[in-house]
Amino acid sequence: MLIVQKYGGTSVGNLERIENVAKRVAKAKKEGNDVVVVVSAMSGETNKLIDYAKHFSPTPSKRDMDLLLSSGERVTAALLSIALNEMGLPTVAMTGRQAGIVTDKSHTVARIEKIDPKPMKKALDEGKIVVVAGFQGITEDGQVTTLGRGGSDLSAVAIAGALGADKCEIYSDVDGVYTTDPRIEPKAKKLDKISYDEMLELASLGAKVLQNRSVELAKKLGVVIEAKSSFNDNPGTIITKEEEIMEKPLVSGIALDKNQARVSLRGVKDRPGIAAEIFKALANENINVDMIVQTIGEDDKTNLDFTVPQNELELVKKVMDRFKEEYQKIEYDPDVAKVSVVGVGMKSHSGVASRAFETMAKENINIEMISTSEIKISMIIDEKYGELAVRALHAAYELDK
Amino acid sequence: MLIVQKYGGTSVGNLERIENVAKRVAKAKKEGNDVVVVVSAMSGETNKLIDYAKHFSPTPSKRDMDLLLSSGERVTAALLSIALNEMGLPTVAMTGRQAGIVTDKSHTVARIEKIDPKPMKKALDEGKIVVVAGFQGITEDGQVTTLGRGGSDLSAVAIAGALGADKCEIYSDVDGVYTTDPRIEPKAKKLDKISYDEMLELASLGAKVLQNRSVELAKKLGVVIEAKSSFNDNPGTIITKEEEIMEKPLVSGIALDKNQARVSLRGVKDRPGIAAEIFKALANENINVDMIVQTIGEDDKTNLDFTVPQNELELVKKVMDRFKEEYQKIEYDPDVAKVSVVGVGMKSHSGVASRAFETMAKENINIEMISTSEIKISMIIDEKYGELAVRALHAAYELDK
Repeated sequence: MLIVQKYGGTSVGNLERIENVAKRVAKAKKEGNDVVVVVSAMSGETNKLIDYAKHFSPTPSKRDMDLLLSSGERVTAALLSIALNEMGLPTVAMTGRQAGIVTDKSHTVARIEKIDPKPMKKALDEGKIVVVAGFQGITEDGQVTTLGRGGSDLSAVAIAGALGADKCEIYSDVDGVYTTDPRIEPKAKKLDKISYDEMLELASLGAKVLQNRSVELAKKLGVVIEAKSSFNDNPGTIITKEEEIMEKPLVSGIALDKNQARVSLRGVKDRPGIAAEIFKALANENINVDMIVQTIGEDDKTNLDFTVPQNELELVKKVMDRFKEEYQKIEYDPDVAKVSVVGVGMKSHSGVASRAFETMAKENINIEMISTSEIKISMIIDEKYGELAVRALHAAYELDK
Repeated sequence: MLIVQKYGGTSVGNLERIENVAKRVAKAKKEGNDVVVVVSAMSGETNKLIDYAKHFSPTPSKRDMDLLLSSGERVTAALLSIALNEMGLPTVAMTGRQAGIVTDKSHTVARIEKIDPKPMKKALDEGKIVVVAGFQGITEDGQVTTLGRGGSDLSAVAIAGALGADKCEIYSDVDGVYTTDPRIEPKAKKLDKISYDEMLELASLGAKVLQNRSVELAKKLGVVIEAKSSFNDNPGTIITKEEEIMEKPLVSGIALDKNQARVSLRGVKDRPGIAAEIFKALANENINVDMIVQTIGEDDKTNLDFTVPQNELELVKKVMDRFKEEYQKIEYDPDVAKVSVVGVGMKSHSGVASRAFETMAKENINIEMISTSEIKISMIIDEKYGELAVRALHAAYELDK
């Protein structure tokens, strides 16, 4: 098998942990696999460098930040390569550039445009372990770029795609993807398999194992991911195509997002395009509007409710002030949470949503807004009932069984 | 003027010092100069990374070491660029690769083969300050290399040569080149100017300001160096062609090297090539033989005396054991020092050497070996008289005047 392994910052957080990672890589190699390892910077290093930069400027140039931040992954790649050599395993350590990773020019949030797999293939053909500095690439004209948050995951998935790897193992300090946050519901169970789409919903709803960009890329490239821990030998969670999952559970997981605030406009003039104008103004400030509900009110006026990230509420208020001629009344509620039920099974089963609503009713939790997709039901509720709602739904869908 | 400035590890040793460097660079720019800045890693960083590597292996691969160590200078370059931007000065930070520095394939001790000055020239033409990560380059086939000890000085001199810069300012924590070590002779004076050849002699004799490789390169490329401190505004020492120095002092400086040991072979068989065999064997162990004196002894046998670095004496003994059939007696004296008088003026003046010998005689210091070049007289003496000899010679040549 050709396996791409990616180790995150905590997995390579100190020299002992890098040694531990080397042992894991060696094991995979000795089991007869071809192995490419993608590494993050040692945990804390990237933040240290960001602090250094902020010492000089609140707004350092993105090009300089890329040069600065790309150094951390190089260090880890070189150290892991040295550790593997010492175990008698030949390696080639590569920067993003040397691994053939070409990105667009969007410094600090670059997108991978293509990967030239030849240098990696050559090293693999020679029986070597390839160790790649994650999170980075270069533009066509040789500028150093980084891929933004979760960038090393992206590097790993893209490399797995380019090499046609059998599996992309993403190691962190958690065992895999759970039916819900075990800190909220101790009965939460680790999922053996989950589809890309479910993972995408769970990730955007707050599950921290994998970020959306890498799951999206894995889906696009057909890369099978296994999310697992580098601190134990437990099997992880496979993230793959829906068709690969034989036994499709009705519901895979329950997610809670407490970083939500609700904005309620009452008596909005029913003028064409007004909603579009408001949401465009918010988008221009990079505010992510999540759920939107529009209802008809009195006198040909409409009511508009939407949610925004709680930590951006002050900025939202400033934007909304610009529109104050357009509505009669505005209310802000920072104390709401979004609880979501995710599962591919609900596509083919009715009654999933009604069970969620019944569960909320039984717990006397008022649902303020509802939004549904093919594989997800999200409900906005009073923030203080967030954990209760998660536990009740986890039980209602028998996820602890 | 086009100025290349190079700041060493202590000059960029913490964030405040980088800020200080930024102010110096800004001043040079605001005075109307085009400026290229070459930076080292923050002091301590390189040693930290070496310690990390040694944790995993006593003999890490040189290719990995280059990937590892080249990260430190990138960090400093990015941070200095950010600091300059914040002062309103446009910059382009460059890695060795981006600055067009191409080296041979000798990892960890690479030699610069060529520099493509176009990217730097373009940035300078746009009015930008160029900030280059020193100590590094890439090979023709894209491997990351480092230049070895004093590598950032080499980067700076090579860049100054490639750009035809008017001056290469090398900043460290010392004010310049002194007539002798001020810790030995407080009356030591800073030299305003010194020739490349004198600097080479002084550097190889222990003056720590500049290393020989960069002085040699400066001489070859005709780059005028000014060695100065980044911690004050004192003028430094100009290192330039002998012809540029109007007033040629008889003697420029006195140097002391206490890392010397004497090896004395008595009764060496007078067989052709025996000396060559011995010195080849020592060279194979990377032992630097310094002074060599051969005298004719009794019975067609010769005596051979030479000096080696004191800290390599044990290794020397092992090598010499292999030749024990070739000599009657061997003696090792680890307690010797080399005191040297350097000056281009001695080319055209007689009596310089005899004044040195007289001075030693007056102080009752026995001279064990003598070696002279066009611009240097070196004497091996008992180590305990080293400082006394320096002070006596300093006074004899009126260097304190």
